[in-house]
Amino acid sequence: MLLLEQYSQLCFSCQLIFFGLSNQLVVSFKEENTVAFKHLFLKGYSGVDEDDYSCSIYTQQDAYDSIFYVINQYKQLKNISLGTLGYEHDGSGLKICKQQYKKGAMLPSNDTLNIDISTETECIVLKPQELASKKAELKLNSSFFNLEFYRLIQVEISFKLKGIALQTIHARELPDCYAFQNTITFNNRAHSGKIKIYFDSDTDIQECKDWHILGSVLQKNSQYILVFDGFVILSCLASLILCTRSIVLALRLQKRFVNFFLEKYKRHVCHADRLEFINGWYVLVIISDVMTIIGSILKMEIKAKNLTSYDVCSILLGTSTLFVWVGVIRYLGYFQTYNVLILTMQASLPKVLRFCCCAGMIYLGYTFCGWIVLGPYHEKFEDLNTVAECLFSLVNGDDMFATFAQIQQKSTLVWVFSRLYLYSFISLFIYMILSLFIALITDSYDTIKKYQQSGFPVTDLHEFLKDCGNVSYRKEQASMPSICCCRRRLSDDNLILIN
Amino acid sequence: MLLLEQYSQLCFSCQLIFFGLSNQLVVSFKEENTVAFKHLFLKGYSGVDEDDYSCSIYTQQDAYDSIFYVINQYKQLKNISLGTLGYEHDGSGLKICKQQYKKGAMLPSNDTLNIDISTETECIVLKPQELASKKAELKLNSSFFNLEFYRLIQVEISFKLKGIALQTIHARELPDCYAFQNTITFNNRAHSGKIKIYFDSDTDIQECKDWHILGSVLQKNSQYILVFDGFVILSCLASLILCTRSIVLALRLQKRFVNFFLEKYKRHVCHADRLEFINGWYVLVIISDVMTIIGSILKMEIKAKNLTSYDVCSILLGTSTLFVWVGVIRYLGYFQTYNVLILTMQASLPKVLRFCCCAGMIYLGYTFCGWIVLGPYHEKFEDLNTVAECLFSLVNGDDMFATFAQIQQKSTLVWVFSRLYLYSFISLFIYMILSLFIALITDSYDTIKKYQQSGFPVTDLHEFLKDCGNVSYRKEQASMPSICCCRRRLSDDNLILIN
Amino acid sequence: MLLLEQYSQLCFSCQLIFFGLSNQLVVSFKEENTVAFKHLFLKGYSGVDEDDYSCSIYTQQDAYDSIFYVINQYKQLKNISLGTLGYEHDGSGLKICKQQYKKGAMLPSNDTLNIDISTETECIVLKPQELASKKAELKLNSSFFNLEFYRLIQVEISFKLKGIALQTIHARELPDCYAFQNTITFNNRAHSGKIKIYFDSDTDIQECKDWHILGSVLQKNSQYILVFDGFVILSCLASLILCTRSIVLALRLQKRFVNFFLEKYKRHVCHADRLEFINGWYVLVIISDVMTIIGSILKMEIKAKNLTSYDVCSILLGTSTLFVWVGVIRYLGYFQTYNVLILTMQASLPKVLRFCCCAGMIYLGYTFCGWIVLGPYHEKFEDLNTVAECLFSLVNGDDMFATFAQIQQKSTLVWVFSRLYLYSFISLFIYMILSLFIALITDSYDTIKKYQQSGFPVTDLHEFLKDCGNVSYRKEQASMPSICCCRRRLSDDNLILIN
Amino acid sequence: MLLLEQYSQLCFSCQLIFFGLSNQLVVSFKEENTVAFKHLFLKGYSGVDEDDYSCSIYTQQDAYDSIFYVINQYKQLKNISLGTLGYEHDGSGLKICKQQYKKGAMLPSNDTLNIDISTETECIVLKPQELASKKAELKLNSSFFNLEFYRLIQVEISFKLKGIALQTIHARELPDCYAFQNTITFNNRAHSGKIKIYFDSDTDIQECKDWHILGSVLQKNSQYILVFDGFVILSCLASLILCTRSIVLALRLQKRFVNFFLEKYKRHVCHADRLEFINGWYVLVIISDVMTIIGSILKMEIKAKNLTSYDVCSILLGTSTLFVWVGVIRYLGYFQTYNVLILTMQASLPKVLRFCCCAGMIYLGYTFCGWIVLGPYHEKFEDLNTVAECLFSLVNGDDMFATFAQIQQKSTLVWVFSRLYLYSFISLFIYMILSLFIALITDSYDTIKKYQQSGFPVTDLHEFLKDCGNVSYRKEQASMPSICCCRRRLSDDNLILIN
Repeated sequence: MLLLEQYSQLCFSCQLIFFGLSNQLVVSFKEENTVAFKHLFLKGYSGVDEDDYSCSIYTQQDAYDSIFYVINQYKQLKNISLGTLGYEHDGSGLKICKQQYKKGAMLPSNDTLNIDISTETECIVLKPQELASKKAELKLNSSFFNLEFYRLIQVEISFKLKGIALQTIHARELPDCYAFQNTITFNNRAHSGKIKIYFDSDTDIQECKDWHILGSVLQKNSQYILVFDGFVILSCLASLILCTRSIVLALRLQKRFVNFFLEKYKRHVCHADRLEFINGWYVLVIISDVMTIIGSILKMEIKAKNLTSYDVCSILLGTSTLFVWVGVIRYLGYFQTYNVLILTMQASLPKVLRFCCCAGMIYLGYTFCGWIVLGPYHEKFEDLNTVAECLFSLVNGDDMFATFAQIQQKSTLVWVFSRLYLYSFISLFIYMILSLFIALITDSYDTIKKYQQSGFPVTDLHEFLKDCGNVSYRKEQASMPSICCCRRRLSDDNLILIN
Repeated sequence: MLLLEQYSQLCFSCQLIFFGLSNQLVVSFKEENTVAFKHLFLKGYSGVDEDDYSCSIYTQQDAYDSIFYVINQYKQLKNISLGTLGYEHDGSGLKICKQQYKKGAMLPSNDTLNIDISTETECIVLKPQELASKKAELKLNSSFFNLEFYRLIQVEISFKLKGIALQTIHARELPDCYAFQNTITFNNRAHSGKIKIYFDSDTDIQECKDWHILGSVLQKNSQYILVFDGFVILSCLASLILCTRSIVLALRLQKRFVNFFLEKYKRHVCHADRLEFINGWYVLVIISDVMTIIGSILKMEIKAKNLTSYDVCSILLGTSTLFVWVGVIRYLGYFQTYNVLILTMQASLPKVLRFCCCAGMIYLGYTFCGWIVLGPYHEKFEDLNTVAECLFSLVNGDDMFATFAQIQQKSTLVWVFSRLYLYSFISLFIYMILSLFIALITDSYDTIKKYQQSGFPVTDLHEFLKDCGNVSYRKEQASMPSICCCRRRLSDDNLILIN
Repeated sequence: MLLLEQYSQLCFSCQLIFFGLSNQLVVSFKEENTVAFKHLFLKGYSGVDEDDYSCSIYTQQDAYDSIFYVINQYKQLKNISLGTLGYEHDGSGLKICKQQYKKGAMLPSNDTLNIDISTETECIVLKPQELASKKAELKLNSSFFNLEFYRLIQVEISFKLKGIALQTIHARELPDCYAFQNTITFNNRAHSGKIKIYFDSDTDIQECKDWHILGSVLQKNSQYILVFDGFVILSCLASLILCTRSIVLALRLQKRFVNFFLEKYKRHVCHADRLEFINGWYVLVIISDVMTIIGSILKMEIKAKNLTSYDVCSILLGTSTLFVWVGVIRYLGYFQTYNVLILTMQASLPKVLRFCCCAGMIYLGYTFCGWIVLGPYHEKFEDLNTVAECLFSLVNGDDMFATFAQIQQKSTLVWVFSRLYLYSFISLFIYMILSLFIALITDSYDTIKKYQQSGFPVTDLHEFLKDCGNVSYRKEQASMPSICCCRRRLSDDNLILIN
Repeated sequence: MLLLEQYSQLCFSCQLIFFGLSNQLVVSFKEENTVAFKHLFLKGYSGVDEDDYSCSIYTQQDAYDSIFYVINQYKQLKNISLGTLGYEHDGSGLKICKQQYKKGAMLPSNDTLNIDISTETECIVLKPQELASKKAELKLNSSFFNLEFYRLIQVEISFKLKGIALQTIHARELPDCYAFQNTITFNNRAHSGKIKIYFDSDTDIQECKDWHILGSVLQKNSQYILVFDGFVILSCLASLILCTRSIVLALRLQKRFVNFFLEKYKRHVCHADRLEFINGWYVLVIISDVMTIIGSILKMEIKAKNLTSYDVCSILLGTSTLFVWVGVIRYLGYFQTYNVLILTMQASLPKVLRFCCCAGMIYLGYTFCGWIVLGPYHEKFEDLNTVAECLFSLVNGDDMFATFAQIQQKSTLVWVFSRLYLYSFISLFIYMILSLFIALITDSYDTIKKYQQSGFPVTDLHEFLKDCGNVSYRKEQASMPSICCCRRRLSDDNLILIN
């Protein structure tokens, strides 16, 4: 059983690596295409994305230039692009939409504002065929391109391109056909004098409809992978069934033991004793197996181009690998010396979690406080999520000076507050709370070591089990033996599973 | 009571998040406008601010270019800017002031210096209307723009722009009208051949005077927020009153106990025992409540555009949230297991603070020493405050290599000193002082654990209270009962507050 | 002996420093030449290498420009380059090769693909002599330079340049002649619209064939270095022989002891006791000596320009230095107070390693999981090796905020997963596992301290050796004395080696 | 006495801050001038210094351009520069020197080298007056500017400029006259095709010879500073004398005690007991005082423009401040609770140092090994000093990922070695050695705490002193009383010094 499991684990890791590598290929192709698009269609794109958007413009001239640049580059795409790109066959062309408030008037000098805030959207479509013709020129000179920035909300340019990924050929797989739905958004929602340009590329992968490939035989090793996948799923199923059976047996045994104990000693079995019937490792194995099976099925569907939910699949497979490797620790627990460490971690876990609760309260307080007060003055405190990450990094000694230095020195009050805030937070967490963690773990370690030398504290269950051996010759043989047997069966079960 | 408090806390957090979000909107609008202004008015602005100033110039030509660039951009602002900006209605226009030493002569070649160090300030105003006319051209060609850099102290260009923030419309609030008072300063105070250009934008927010908005109903949810605010203030007031009453009662009880003890046992009650009458948590709640009430009132004023002191308000509200969350730990203290940790932190706090004093002395010494010696050679040691932050980061293991590497290798002596300084500081603090913190906390933890197993050391108060139950039947019933009752009342009070 | 060893160690360190310095000279010459080549031959090279490649291009025009730029710069190299470069004498010239799929057709718009995936390679050679002539112009206008990007796999431009490194003259050594085999690769393998340009420079070092140098006497101190090297090798040989003899003697003694013990007490000597016969330090010295000898011989060969395997040599010498310095700790072990620390490290090592196994399992799990799930979205998770390094850095508190911030916010699912993944990993490792390390070491330290005060636990061997002194007068003098003598010899041996 | 010392310490800190601020002014003026010079005279200077040099060039054209750019900018300096600069009065002008090997021939293509390695230096001087004339043009067209790069070693352009720092006027001090000796070096020593341009500016500060300043009264507060300085020196002298006297008395007492002990008990006083006579704090105070006095005198000389050794002065003053602040800890030692911490640090210091020795050996080994092997492939391992700093940062958890990532992937062997090297180093130091530090400190803390509860171990001296009180009535009154008195005097001395 152990052998089987390890073998299947090996298979699983191999399969995972193959999956990861092919996944990487697809993702890097997408990414490189997006970068290439940005360089082709965004004027003045420097290769560095500012925050979430790709670049930003500040003058009206720049706005017009950027828009016409896109149109121009789209027009001569075939002569510019290095990739194997083509326009969408259905001729959907380049679609430019501008969204704006309905006509109004705004005189900032007089604090006068006269506006209809319901929005209107105008669109214009430039087909690739007509771009060279006079018609397109007329369109480009139309009043559509007289932007009234004071009421403009956004301009959205969208177009579809198709491409072919040849590189899969090297892996002896069929080439994929990609459809890129590109959208360039000029966002003027804030009317702050800064228009942010977003570039977004949605990719759709399809099998190429019409292909003739000479010179090599393709799609050989995908059969092997399928066999691999099948084997992994089967072995996971086997392991799943065995573990579930084990847990079910254990639960039954627990029920009988509880009843017997109630009858015999008129006492309820405590919660901790009941939990001991359930082997936590089996639960882990079951979860991991279920994830592997679902993940593998998803993977086969993805390979067959029926699905494209790479993310769900990779999370399922990834998490199950994590559990599989954690599960290996179980075998190490059979050695006395390794056991101390595992027991210590087990024993200290509840204490650590409990302490994390306390620390978490203070942490949450600081998070909120930092967000409210420092948010407007510090990039890292801009949203709650980033604040949490920043504080977490600070606790672990990262990026401290940068955090101190980045606060803008506009308001002295806020500046002083930020100093108090940061010094108190870091000191409290690093000097007191982190130290307490160490104290907790050291204490647990000492306790476990003492237990190992002088014996663990005896619970009802252990006492009963100890009696089980000696006392079974006595008169209470009516019901006891069966439980003792069960107990033996329980441990045998373990043995079966292990060997 | 507990329920009420938790409910009000929830309200408070919601209210805080709303406040934070609207605050963020205002701040981001201001900031984006400032960035846009810098791109519009500063020639060669790269988007990265050097230290405190936006850019610096090194030649006379650059100085003239930069100044005329501002004038030119201001002239054609309407055709350039993407934002909804307008000149100030009162026609204050563009004001250029140059400050310089009164005429003198300077011949560096001869080490000769002949100067009147009293300064004079000349100004020129260019109104937006006249900028296109000949008059402006005359002004631009006047002798005012013949800068004599050897005695020039600074040139200051200031102008006022008005703008309207439309984005609040999305949040169904009224749009605000902004007045930006921009100042561009060419600072030549150091006469070092490098002129630093500062851009400063002061913003004033007002309600737009004259607005007609069609297409949607505004200002709906601000009513809800007002109700929210009112509820928070009320619940905080309630909690404030209850806690204050509790503290006052406790103080009275303490006084009576002290007197009784003095009469009865002829002994003074020790300081620690006296302190135990005052529940620290109540003090925390009181402070937090006062802050919340003041902060919420400020917030309502800000919403009503009567005040603009965002900073004070956010600091008050932020700090009170921090306290509210820290206050939650109190409830965790009722569980035995959580209590160990809270007690440990409580017990180790004085020791840690005391130790911080000692470490602080060495820290201060290093701070001063680093500033004096390394200041001229190392950016991070330039002012006392940065030195302190840099050393604090070093202690926590941040930015170490960068700090080592940044020291300029001009003077070998200083270089060697910096090595000694940094190695000794880091080793001392990380290997000795941080380790001692851990020793302190571990020791406190062990002590508290031992106490919990074998009982806490008994103080006068505890002994008395213990007696209170058993001994109340004895003859000292004259004065004791009332105190015992009080004590019961004290705990009842707690119960009332808790439940 | 100690004196000899320390003296030889000093020699060795000196020799190492000389080697390091001359190595550095060679490497920096190579590196500066490579940088100069990149600036000369790559159009638009900014001095910063992106990932592995030097720059990337996105348009067809850029591709042609870059290729012709190389040819042009090569043509006029003599008039451009600042270095002492010349074309290869054999006139191999500039070789341009393009690799592409055999002719086919690709219409991405129709998802149509018609390709022969067997590749063909075309080459063209431009000799330096003919570059100025009409012939070269014809070649440059040939159809070879009509690149069909949709089937182009890569363009490779390679040429050989020769140079002379004069700077060694300052060190009074002979100048070396270098042959640079430069290759510029335009990689279009991915067909993603982005061509990556790789620059690779292979360097070959030879003695200059034909040199006449006036004005100074060269190659003096290389004799001294030879003597140095010889001395180091000799002393290492001596130390090697002595240590080996010691170990052999100890092994023999061990064998006799085991036999004697078996005969006498009918008991097998335990493994730990057997190991105690072998002095671990001697093993270290032997390894270090062997490495030094091989390394020194390699070094002499490199100096004589017979070999260029700098890397192997430097690894051998470097590792042996490391061991030599670690070996010094042995002498510190003779002092009681230092001994505690060494013993603690020795005692805790197995525990730490054992614990590392457990932690390693979880670590491996996280590594795999992170690679699979986050790989496509995060630069640091792109390959297994980088993931391991990234996680290792995180555990030690480095680069945390950057890791958090770098994850792309494309897929919310993956984003949430990344947060869970990172928070759980960091918390688990820093708060639990690092703390356990401290608990382990603290425990070992306490144990060793207790042992030192109350005596170490007595093993068979120690008991026997203790008896050896007292009991040797008894009747078992038949075989014992010889072992006791041996033991004395063993310790004498140590003394000989030490003194 | 305590009052006096604290008062003088306050003075000292004030004086130090004044010194620091004025120092900063001078340094920032120098630095800004250097930056301005770089922007004025270096073509293509981007504001970022590469490693140690300012920029580097790769083509012959760039080299000529850069040289003529300097000449041109120097010629029209008055019309370009923003600072108050002038040519040196003595008309030393612009001096261009080129250093090259004596004529030879080099044909890299044939591996042929024919060179006279003795160097020759040619110079040309362009005076400011003649730069506009025809004579200068002739010079610029002369054969001097036909550089033969293959034998060129370096071109050095040097010129002297004078400037006046007006900003001190704001501080009501006299303006200083500066002489800048600028040197621009084109370094071709490596002949690697990359010429590095170094800019060096040596500054000389003098009092302006000839000044007439109107409008304000200068140099007022420098008198106060002089008084301040005098007071500090006096109080330091007083403290120095008192402490020295104390130490001398203690040494005498020690001698008498040793003699007495030898006579009386026929025993030698142990080393530790002898040391106890000498108060370590007094030694610290003496060192600090001596440094302060020398530093203050230097400072006064600097103020009087007689000296310019800012560095020595600031190191002396800086270190003495550090000691002064450390000295404050002494007063905290009088409180019981603070004492534990001070004693722990004292007790653990020798252990920590001893352990540092052991760790230092391994550290040194790794440093050497890293330098030799990784030096050529990793920027941070380029020289021994940087390696040490890099490893030190790694131990403290800084810059780990960057260090991992920076290694060039040229040689797989070296790459694998670097991984082994880094992982082993970091694990060893963070998990074992840092943990041992904590174990050491925790142990010391426990020991001290136990001592405080159950009494410190009694040494000869303490026993004797204890007897001193009780036994003085006995018969040994011949010599004892005087010692007991002395002892009283010793403590009285302390009292005098303290109060």
